[in-house]
Amino acid sequence: MADYRAPLEDIRFVLKHVFNVEEFWQGLEGMGDMDIDTADAILEEAAKICEEVLAPLNREADEQGSQWSEGNVTSPEGFKDAYQTFCEGGWNGLGGNPEYDGMGMPKTLVAAVEEMLQGSCIAFGLAPMLTAGASFAINAHASDELKALYLPKMYSGEWAGAMDLTEPHAGTDLGLIRTKAQPQADGSYAITGTKIFITWGEHDMADNIVHLVLAKLPDAPAGSRGISLFLVPKVIPNADGSLGARNGVSCGSIEKKMGIKASATCVMNFDGAQGWLVGEPNKGLMAMFTMMNYERLMVGVQGISVAEASYQNAAEYAKERIQSRSPSGPQMPDKEADSLLVHPDVRRMLMTMRAYNEGGRAFYIYVARWLDTAKYGATEELRKHADNMVALLTPVAKAFMTDVAFDSAVMGQQVYGGHGYIREWGQEQHVRDIRITQIYEGTNGIQAMDLIGRKTLAVDGGLLALLAEEIRAYCASAGDDHSHLAEALLCALEGLEASTQHILSASKQDPNYPGAIACDYLHYVGYVAYGYMWLQMACAAKQSSSAQAQAKPALAEFFFAYLLPQVATLQQRIESGASSVMGLPMDAF
Amino acid sequence: MADYRAPLEDIRFVLKHVFNVEEFWQGLEGMGDMDIDTADAILEEAAKICEEVLAPLNREADEQGSQWSEGNVTSPEGFKDAYQTFCEGGWNGLGGNPEYDGMGMPKTLVAAVEEMLQGSCIAFGLAPMLTAGASFAINAHASDELKALYLPKMYSGEWAGAMDLTEPHAGTDLGLIRTKAQPQADGSYAITGTKIFITWGEHDMADNIVHLVLAKLPDAPAGSRGISLFLVPKVIPNADGSLGARNGVSCGSIEKKMGIKASATCVMNFDGAQGWLVGEPNKGLMAMFTMMNYERLMVGVQGISVAEASYQNAAEYAKERIQSRSPSGPQMPDKEADSLLVHPDVRRMLMTMRAYNEGGRAFYIYVARWLDTAKYGATEELRKHADNMVALLTPVAKAFMTDVAFDSAVMGQQVYGGHGYIREWGQEQHVRDIRITQIYEGTNGIQAMDLIGRKTLAVDGGLLALLAEEIRAYCASAGDDHSHLAEALLCALEGLEASTQHILSASKQDPNYPGAIACDYLHYVGYVAYGYMWLQMACAAKQSSSAQAQAKPALAEFFFAYLLPQVATLQQRIESGASSVMGLPMDAF
Repeated sequence: MADYRAPLEDIRFVLKHVFNVEEFWQGLEGMGDMDIDTADAILEEAAKICEEVLAPLNREADEQGSQWSEGNVTSPEGFKDAYQTFCEGGWNGLGGNPEYDGMGMPKTLVAAVEEMLQGSCIAFGLAPMLTAGASFAINAHASDELKALYLPKMYSGEWAGAMDLTEPHAGTDLGLIRTKAQPQADGSYAITGTKIFITWGEHDMADNIVHLVLAKLPDAPAGSRGISLFLVPKVIPNADGSLGARNGVSCGSIEKKMGIKASATCVMNFDGAQGWLVGEPNKGLMAMFTMMNYERLMVGVQGISVAEASYQNAAEYAKERIQSRSPSGPQMPDKEADSLLVHPDVRRMLMTMRAYNEGGRAFYIYVARWLDTAKYGATEELRKHADNMVALLTPVAKAFMTDVAFDSAVMGQQVYGGHGYIREWGQEQHVRDIRITQIYEGTNGIQAMDLIGRKTLAVDGGLLALLAEEIRAYCASAGDDHSHLAEALLCALEGLEASTQHILSASKQDPNYPGAIACDYLHYVGYVAYGYMWLQMACAAKQSSSAQAQAKPALAEFFFAYLLPQVATLQQRIESGASSVMGLPMDAF
Repeated sequence: MADYRAPLEDIRFVLKHVFNVEEFWQGLEGMGDMDIDTADAILEEAAKICEEVLAPLNREADEQGSQWSEGNVTSPEGFKDAYQTFCEGGWNGLGGNPEYDGMGMPKTLVAAVEEMLQGSCIAFGLAPMLTAGASFAINAHASDELKALYLPKMYSGEWAGAMDLTEPHAGTDLGLIRTKAQPQADGSYAITGTKIFITWGEHDMADNIVHLVLAKLPDAPAGSRGISLFLVPKVIPNADGSLGARNGVSCGSIEKKMGIKASATCVMNFDGAQGWLVGEPNKGLMAMFTMMNYERLMVGVQGISVAEASYQNAAEYAKERIQSRSPSGPQMPDKEADSLLVHPDVRRMLMTMRAYNEGGRAFYIYVARWLDTAKYGATEELRKHADNMVALLTPVAKAFMTDVAFDSAVMGQQVYGGHGYIREWGQEQHVRDIRITQIYEGTNGIQAMDLIGRKTLAVDGGLLALLAEEIRAYCASAGDDHSHLAEALLCALEGLEASTQHILSASKQDPNYPGAIACDYLHYVGYVAYGYMWLQMACAAKQSSSAQAQAKPALAEFFFAYLLPQVATLQQRIESGASSVMGLPMDAF
């Protein structure tokens, strides 16, 4: 198992040469003083803590897991200290609101730090990620009083955050939740109910845990329009921020899982726990959704992160392990055999991993740029355009990134042969860990329904048209160096547009059609988006002399020659319609 | 988690209506008295033991794992008793040579029994599977004396078998092995060396364990032409079959693995252990290969088995779990929501699983039919033809079946949403367990190299031509009922033949080319082969009124409309050549 190395060089290449972030930041409202040197210093510090403090915990923490005993959760050895170190570095508040002691860094930078955090130890990384998500929702929707009391402690990491949505019978369909919120005389609410799958819902790393809980007010309308959001702390703080009485929140048990074992996935019981409303009554789901674009992108980043760690191991192993001779004759004649790296099938797997991982890295920074624009863009027109781009790209970022990152990690395991199946080598853990990213924060199927429903059918394909326009403009100005790639991209884009038109008309005839091809459509958009990233990276390569940059044109060629052809299959599936998918009656299953 | 139900109805449909095995068996040399009623009775008995004895052990055995202590391996609770029951039923010797108390059943039947065995508990199933494999090699290559001493005990299961090939530095490339065999005065050999990844190399279920060990004689030629095969028992038997002295064979440790945790994966130390040569000196690898066609097919069957268990769970869950409404409006208006089964994206996953699993079931029986023909065929011409078909189909059976079965099990987990990630539901175990089938018994990349090298380039595409001829003849006689499927199959076949021609010529120009596209080519053959199975199943459906048979035409439509289009991508990849795969220099990784 190789030591995790933060992919700093590639992150810098993308930030600086592909997206020219300095100019971008300086055009944002209130970000004018952000420069690339500051960003670089932050990235280097983050890399250090990820490589030196977090990554060394990852393997053993998986074996130990978090442990539950009588309502308490003990995190694996080293987590508590690492969390302390992490908080002291101020990393919890990196993207937080400066009014409440956050550092106010743009998402374009925060996302890159997040990649290193998740890549070094995803189970640990979930704690700051959930805290950041909860802080985000509080900042966006809570009263000034709640913000002042909670946010500084959450940005400092003294208090951690958790999101409490799912119930035993209600996962995707949150309209079914049963947790109740009873108004109290003092303006607070008594929360009663049970939540499951609550990541880091209980642990020993922070002094307090701030739960954001979905619950129903008495007489709330049925379904998803009757859900409200509440802030429910594990320990009720006094007005001065010191800790008061323990609240009626307890952890009933933790799950035994496939992966991310070091993180506690909790059953949380709320027994008349005191909570405070966040945002408007019955608008809890909307409040959650403002945060979801960030969280879903972060889950996509988790996919890339773990797949990158898997690649680093696989490449190292392929260089060191000798086995059989190259088909072109011995490459290491002084050894008993050549390294795995000479074998074209191994090379194919490593190239695929690189193409997906680095394509994904560019893509998450691209999406983060739109998130920054939506928040800090100079004009309302720009912000609105960015909002639309974020709406289109978020489900793709969550689902496509994690789907191909999973394939990537499976390949990283395959490169190891039998050793890939053995726990000590670390590759199988990456597969187990990464698998959750396709499932949580809305399964990838749900992302696909979001893309095809709200983001495509509901707007008559209008959001995709924005991306298409941008890609066409880029291709037109890209110059001759990689014109064959630009042509291939435009060709794939035309196919995607044709499929989109087909979907718009076929959906009118058959209500089952959109769902039947939703995942394929999402993948189609994903391949085109990654193709756009690879074209930009190939074009940007000449601006840098780094080894990472030098590899980009060859990786881009590979992406276009070997991976993009997947769209041929996707197009045929989309055209084949829903009748075969729905061809069996219910009782035939 | 649903109880495992042996897929008897589908197995019967395939045996009886798709392949008309009774007539087939009765045309084989020495199988003339085999009939479908006998087969049926055997299948039912096997189903019973698999459902009632083995399947209930599967979940808890994964949690317990096998335990190592001071050279001894304790199998999980219940395994020892289950093994006893299994042996008493005579199942170990089902395909064994009747001269030594085997039951001599055809592979077409044995493979179906094997599916149920592996589907109920793959970790357990490995023990009989390895014993059958070792018996097979002994029967084919050992002296009559060794056969008489060992085979009856192995067929009865009193003694188990293990295959000891891999060494720490030599997996795929067995030419590198270092285990030594020193001739002794009594004609036996002293075996010294260390083997790793030895499945059930040590355990407490049988009185003795018979190791087949690859080792090198003194002055053996270098590489794979200097490898011999030895029989090395854990306990040396007396001439009357009673147990004598303990041999110098010991288990140094067992691996911590991703899955199949209940099975022991052993490091085996041979310290001057007494062994006997099996077959000719230096021809050990050849002796192993005669067995490998059977073993590799069985690994493919393992894939189908586990994917079937995953499907059963997923279908059950999709029926019971209610979540959101159907896009066509409420289907269960009296409930809070509709079942998952109404959702087209869930249906897509279940249909994909069915199409892959049932296509694979027909395919393994099809390949088994060729194995039976190769062994018992009435004429030498027929046997030779069957040998060629087996040569072509074996790598496809091992690698394609397990690749798509893995995808199938991942989907079976996805249907469960978050619950799919939790161990108690069993779906994540299936993913962990099935993953090994893509790795062991020659990684799937190695299978692809076998297909494209020995089975394609070396014979100028001649083996594929045999399959193509058979498919064309079938399509010509298939009648009009499913002529659009036959046309689609012929079209895919033509594409495959064109790709094969392309490969034959492109490989001459670039030695890296075959390896670069080997996996894609193997998948291409796999899709065409499954298409051939689905066409046959669709055509056979009218011969049976079972629910299983009635579903076949719709599943065939789905396979052709939704899954077969993958060949469009494969074709493009194959045409794109190796240059992009090998586009980066070694030091760029």
